Amino acid sequence: MSILEKINCSNDIKQLNTEELPRLCEEIRSYLIQTLSKTGGHLASNLGTVELTVALHRVYDTSRDRIVFDVGHQSYTHKIITGRRDALPTIRQFGGISGFPKPHEAKDDAFIAGHASNSVSVALGMAHARTLSGENYDVCAVIGDGAMTGGLSFEGLSNTAMSGEPIVVILNDNNMSIAENVGGTAKMLQSMRVKPAYLNFKRQYRKVFSHLPALYSFNHRVKEWLKAHLIPDDIFTEMGFCYLGPIDGHDLRTLESVIRWARDMREPVIVHVLTKKGKGCAYAEANPELYHGVGPFDAQTGVLKEEGESFAACFGKSLCRYAEGDQKIAAITAAMSGGTGLECFASAFPKRFFDIGIAEEHAAAMAGGMAKQGMVPVFAVYSSFLQRSFDMLIHDISLQHLHAVFAVDRAGLVGRDGETHQGVFDIAYLSVVPDMTIYCPASFAELDSMLGLALYACDGPVAVRYPRGGEGAYRDCHNEAECVLREGKDLTIVSYGIMINEVLSAAEKLAETGVCSTVIKLGRIRPNGFQQVLESLSETQRLIVAEDVCAFGSIGSQILSAAAGRGLSFSYRLLNLADGIVTHGSVEELRHLRGIDAEGIEKAARELTGRE
Amino acid sequence: MSILEKINCSNDIKQLNTEELPRLCEEIRSYLIQTLSKTGGHLASNLGTVELTVALHRVYDTSRDRIVFDVGHQSYTHKIITGRRDALPTIRQFGGISGFPKPHEAKDDAFIAGHASNSVSVALGMAHARTLSGENYDVCAVIGDGAMTGGLSFEGLSNTAMSGEPIVVILNDNNMSIAENVGGTAKMLQSMRVKPAYLNFKRQYRKVFSHLPALYSFNHRVKEWLKAHLIPDDIFTEMGFCYLGPIDGHDLRTLESVIRWARDMREPVIVHVLTKKGKGCAYAEANPELYHGVGPFDAQTGVLKEEGESFAACFGKSLCRYAEGDQKIAAITAAMSGGTGLECFASAFPKRFFDIGIAEEHAAAMAGGMAKQGMVPVFAVYSSFLQRSFDMLIHDISLQHLHAVFAVDRAGLVGRDGETHQGVFDIAYLSVVPDMTIYCPASFAELDSMLGLALYACDGPVAVRYPRGGEGAYRDCHNEAECVLREGKDLTIVSYGIMINEVLSAAEKLAETGVCSTVIKLGRIRPNGFQQVLESLSETQRLIVAEDVCAFGSIGSQILSAAAGRGLSFSYRLLNLADGIVTHGSVEELRHLRGIDAEGIEKAARELTGRE
Repeated sequence: MSILEKINCSNDIKQLNTEELPRLCEEIRSYLIQTLSKTGGHLASNLGTVELTVALHRVYDTSRDRIVFDVGHQSYTHKIITGRRDALPTIRQFGGISGFPKPHEAKDDAFIAGHASNSVSVALGMAHARTLSGENYDVCAVIGDGAMTGGLSFEGLSNTAMSGEPIVVILNDNNMSIAENVGGTAKMLQSMRVKPAYLNFKRQYRKVFSHLPALYSFNHRVKEWLKAHLIPDDIFTEMGFCYLGPIDGHDLRTLESVIRWARDMREPVIVHVLTKKGKGCAYAEANPELYHGVGPFDAQTGVLKEEGESFAACFGKSLCRYAEGDQKIAAITAAMSGGTGLECFASAFPKRFFDIGIAEEHAAAMAGGMAKQGMVPVFAVYSSFLQRSFDMLIHDISLQHLHAVFAVDRAGLVGRDGETHQGVFDIAYLSVVPDMTIYCPASFAELDSMLGLALYACDGPVAVRYPRGGEGAYRDCHNEAECVLREGKDLTIVSYGIMINEVLSAAEKLAETGVCSTVIKLGRIRPNGFQQVLESLSETQRLIVAEDVCAFGSIGSQILSAAAGRGLSFSYRLLNLADGIVTHGSVEELRHLRGIDAEGIEKAARELTGRE
Repeated sequence: MSILEKINCSNDIKQLNTEELPRLCEEIRSYLIQTLSKTGGHLASNLGTVELTVALHRVYDTSRDRIVFDVGHQSYTHKIITGRRDALPTIRQFGGISGFPKPHEAKDDAFIAGHASNSVSVALGMAHARTLSGENYDVCAVIGDGAMTGGLSFEGLSNTAMSGEPIVVILNDNNMSIAENVGGTAKMLQSMRVKPAYLNFKRQYRKVFSHLPALYSFNHRVKEWLKAHLIPDDIFTEMGFCYLGPIDGHDLRTLESVIRWARDMREPVIVHVLTKKGKGCAYAEANPELYHGVGPFDAQTGVLKEEGESFAACFGKSLCRYAEGDQKIAAITAAMSGGTGLECFASAFPKRFFDIGIAEEHAAAMAGGMAKQGMVPVFAVYSSFLQRSFDMLIHDISLQHLHAVFAVDRAGLVGRDGETHQGVFDIAYLSVVPDMTIYCPASFAELDSMLGLALYACDGPVAVRYPRGGEGAYRDCHNEAECVLREGKDLTIVSYGIMINEVLSAAEKLAETGVCSTVIKLGRIRPNGFQQVLESLSETQRLIVAEDVCAFGSIGSQILSAAAGRGLSFSYRLLNLADGIVTHGSVEELRHLRGIDAEGIEKAARELTGRE
């Protein structure tokens, strides 16, 4: 029987002896590689945090203590340990466990995660609640150095330091981007601080002198003076944290001791842990970016299954072509140059390419400054992450009617990443922004052409929104606000983007049984007066609008508004995602689940027409 | 002739001799106090930055150089200097100059300002544009220590340091909240860095050694080692800025020299300036918070005109009452305890009160953590600033259906602060958030009662939105989603919040000439099926919806959606603020301008009914 098979909850880990622990880590790594090679998922980051997670479970009891993971894609080992070992092969699959922490799945998952940099703020809220309720569980945030670049984490750290709440922040530093900054300091402090003797001294020192306030105060001042004049401070200490580290993130014994000390200090402590992404798997260690989030691969060789052409890649190529002839175009990404297809832009136009880290607010405000001075910034960003820039879209772009382009990738259903990543709110929140123009290409050809319109036929803010993955059967290029793809007298079906494929295929099926539909594809969905839709509707008197966004602010609801008051009698079905909260699974499965696939559209049409 | 009368543009300042400058500053102060005592406005912050602004105009030419003010309420001296001296008495008045920088008003205003912490990001965007376009103007950001707490400024600073772009960030530090942190460092560096000799040495040193790379590298390493081991670094230096300061912000000569050196260093430089809010005006210096933003006052004594009871004060009192009986209630503010009426809560329940600084993202994420662990956090925040928390409302609150209350103050038109502060997008963006409940009290009594419903009759996220200022003639208390206040057969008028006063007064006038209207007041606007509105509409066949929010997502558009397809023939007018961009002026003037006051409603009703 393997050691892993004996681990069914957090407490089982605590029973293991020091020889069993490294073996457990080995077994977990092997289990991760074998399983993810079949399911896909976040490989490199999880391989890098096996020891860290095991150490956390040695110290904390996640049935009551709260460990808040930042972003959360590094929580697989945590899931394995807390009763979900056998469910791992279902990870990110429809009906299976989520690829992110999810309190609905297990009480060991403290909080939802998916958008970066929130963990310290959330953990501080929990620590406040704990203290105010007179309870005594422990709270710990685990945040990567990438997420540290987000301003939200700075706000959280700054407030946590000030609060004095007992709370431990684990800085999981896996590419040295932070270590470089605090490098000199960190090294010097490591030998001094990480020794139990020093910490014990510190504790005893406080205990003794707390009874002698005057002496304590004098000593404290001497210490502060010494510290200020002799020991260079790191940014965390300046904020008011006790800083411990850096620690080797694969040295289980040290990790466990330091985290335990940190927990017992009863003040805000930061533990700086150095981990290696992809640890223990040669190909993932060699290329951690590639193996960050992957589809299925060969467990032996790491060879990835080939993926088809994507909208993202098509966007990147297209933008390069426009930028070649236009010096004013600049590209911005928030740590997503690979995902957004901007790698080719980065190498072709390095001076006009800006990877500003995970900092979507900054990206949009900076774009405002660039646009004000005559550049045309193109910020490529995932739909659900652009939610972070909502205020800047209004304040720093729209109020001055600045011409900035937003390449909104992963719009609509994204599939396996689930609730936190679905790009289902953008139609609504982008439409709130004054003067925002929104294009929705349904094919690569349309993306190329609409990007051109966004760059050259518009002023003010413009969004071009397109989905994860590739195009479907529809490969035409229709730029217009409204375009009638098919005419029929029985009902009007409206859609935009790649959902048009579902609509066309439903219309085909319907036609086979004599139900004739008018299909109208929207290209530019804002501004759009829906003239042709309304005309068609007055003839067919039946309307279906199919879209993969939330109901509020949807195109369906906009068409209804436009149709109101005219005395039109019509029946309708708005096929959308209601409140927009949609679980994980393949896009096809999720469309089917919510009744917005070809089958669902066909069914709705048959109900409307009474031809079932 | 006073010196001030000679100043008509940035360049005129440059002609003055060193004796004239202090006199100019004195004249500006006196002019500010005299003028603002009549108009109201941001007194203390402008008095504190007179010398700083004069120094900036000695160094920069704002007709081409770009000075980006953060928040921007400290730009009055800038406006006086750049051709708007005689217009100052019109500041914040309808048709007059804005209380914030506004590029449409003058090319000397580099960028719009109003929401904190964006200046460094915007300035960096401008600096990138400048460099990419091969131009050579200078870029400077002026940011207060309050705005520094916002994560956006951290993102901006971090990227600016990395960029190497020549750019000067002026840290206008007026309450030592930052100085305390960098205190020891700052003092030590001041004497060393602020001397031209040191800077010249540094420049020469680089020049010489840049021709001898090996030697430079060795020297550089020695220097770095010395720096690391002997000179404690401040956070800015760690980021990669050259840090200059702190400088006395009222010592004009030093200010001018240091800013000039900073400009000429051609790298990212931060100049730390210590200013005194209210400087030169005894009552404002003594109570800078009170005189931050004021209405008219007595210029001699500083005695402020009394203001009536406000929704904010009523909210504060009401929350205290609920909190007295309920240990689970906690209050959060983002540096607005006065404005949001939370001062009484802060003194009654200091342990449950959290002023987290200008950091709305953190406030909402922290509220999520608190709610998850069983507290009921109440985040009181201005409508336009809550735009910053949009992503957290979805990700950190709604996806887990956490019960957090948002007291959305300054909702609807706010008046004199203008475009950046109007709370006109909240109905739309709050409605995007899954499961958000929204209450709109129209009287103090309703605010008290609806706050109770938000705390005890709801789960999930809840917003209670109310306006700046006080209640009108309507003082009843109707909590229901829909409430018929008046019945009439000719048309249906719908509204919510204090706009109901305009509607009732229009209905009164209409009745005098025999036009009978049904008036329906919405109390809980989300969720709301608009049943009574639709019933009434089917009888009256005429609809007016009057609201002071943007058109997209408005209640009017929601009612139209709900009415569609039923074969209803009706005529309607949606009276709202279209794209939501509304200038400054009194709320009454702005309502009139946009035709949503009683007069506008009456006019629309007469048009609809044909009874003009």
